[in-house]
Amino acid sequence: MTTMTDSTFDTDTRVEPAGAHAYTATLTDRWDALGGVPNGGYLLAVALRALARDMPLPDPVVVSAAYLRPGAPGPAEVATEVARAGRRVATGEAQLRQGDKEIVRVLATFADLEQANGRTHMRSTAPDLPAPERCHDVMDGSVALPGVSITDRFEYRAPVLPGWATGAPTGESELAFWLRFRDGRDADPIALAAMVDAAAPAVLELGEPGSATIELTVHVRARPAPGWLACRTVTRHVIGGYHEEDFEIWDSAGALVAQSRQFALLP
Amino acid sequence: MTTMTDSTFDTDTRVEPAGAHAYTATLTDRWDALGGVPNGGYLLAVALRALARDMPLPDPVVVSAAYLRPGAPGPAEVATEVARAGRRVATGEAQLRQGDKEIVRVLATFADLEQANGRTHMRSTAPDLPAPERCHDVMDGSVALPGVSITDRFEYRAPVLPGWATGAPTGESELAFWLRFRDGRDADPIALAAMVDAAAPAVLELGEPGSATIELTVHVRARPAPGWLACRTVTRHVIGGYHEEDFEIWDSAGALVAQSRQFALLP
Repeated sequence: MTTMTDSTFDTDTRVEPAGAHAYTATLTDRWDALGGVPNGGYLLAVALRALARDMPLPDPVVVSAAYLRPGAPGPAEVATEVARAGRRVATGEAQLRQGDKEIVRVLATFADLEQANGRTHMRSTAPDLPAPERCHDVMDGSVALPGVSITDRFEYRAPVLPGWATGAPTGESELAFWLRFRDGRDADPIALAAMVDAAAPAVLELGEPGSATIELTVHVRARPAPGWLACRTVTRHVIGGYHEEDFEIWDSAGALVAQSRQFALLP
Repeated sequence: MTTMTDSTFDTDTRVEPAGAHAYTATLTDRWDALGGVPNGGYLLAVALRALARDMPLPDPVVVSAAYLRPGAPGPAEVATEVARAGRRVATGEAQLRQGDKEIVRVLATFADLEQANGRTHMRSTAPDLPAPERCHDVMDGSVALPGVSITDRFEYRAPVLPGWATGAPTGESELAFWLRFRDGRDADPIALAAMVDAAAPAVLELGEPGSATIELTVHVRARPAPGWLACRTVTRHVIGGYHEEDFEIWDSAGALVAQSRQFALLP
């Protein structure tokens, strides 16, 4: 277990105030995805860390990110805006920029998940996975992923190696696995927003080499309990190259903590 | 069949230029939802009609709307911005305002769906519904919905009346039905973005009186063929009152044309 101050995620998503509704950050090359560019979930986390400072409520509960251009390691700025601050929910916007280029635009609504005291009614359950100790580290024996560094930050465990990892895609664009930070940092709502984009795209099981995110919407449903997170990802509809990817994260206590859908394009 | 110029939808979502990246509109009381306020999908369509004028590509393919305040019949303004115009996709923002209050903020990426020529791979199919002619008009025999006018604009047909319509919710937060404009206007991508929010919330089948949308993300997957649209809506996870609602629209040719998820709160 590490503290907030010594995890790589906290260090690499840190923002510093630089005027009213303005922050600076430094993107690193430690979260690179397929293509050798900073992962979209990582960029989103940087933007959310800045926006969270300006919002009057603690938890990002619904977040939409439009990916405008690839990011690159180096300096970045985040401009934030509070669009409306209500008693129960508050909505803001963040623009992550590098130089004179906007990289990601984020629209996010915050609330206090500890104050969510309405009805609960569930129609689905967590993925049925063997304990992490009885699963394989997916990166241990996987095909090489040139340029990818994010797999050094996260640990993925599955009952059997996924098809893409062995060079034999299954043809079924669905995956289930355990996920956590390799350095032992536990997840929180902003980390969940990064984690929904941190794994291999489900379309790798269709033999595709990758997936370029156009937009990502994340619902954070609860603050996660410490420990391993059970994940399920599926792409149901690839149409003319465009596809959605749905992702669910369930915590170690069996609660659904995040649900996301992204709109993406085959390369 | 009506033309673009005489459908109520076209009249009531019309925008007029009012300077650079600024438009005026007049919201009507013909699209009121539960609660007697303009439906969120209708507000989104007004914002998209303005934004579409400024975008260099024709089809809104992924749209996120944050609902900040309820709208009201009367004058409205839409401020638009092109965040990035690429060759294949272009992203913009629209802010729908009334007086000095922002009502809805929209982040949308446009593309040309006719140019989507990549791979297609489907894992699901359209709802299995009897032909519309053999279905019931859901509003014919439904419980009264005080203040609701949107049901005069859209026609809903289902094999059996849904539980909420007969005052006997089923306890299963899932619905399937046919949908079209009552005046015969065919759907297009902007109409689809309105239609995903135009039906009874799935949580009515849990005995809930309604659902307040916080955020709505729509993926438009194809330009729809003329005729009836087959819809499926489901809420799988209500947690502390917060819930998602997933909505799919399949056209008369059997193609998935829109897919949406909203994040909402029980009243």
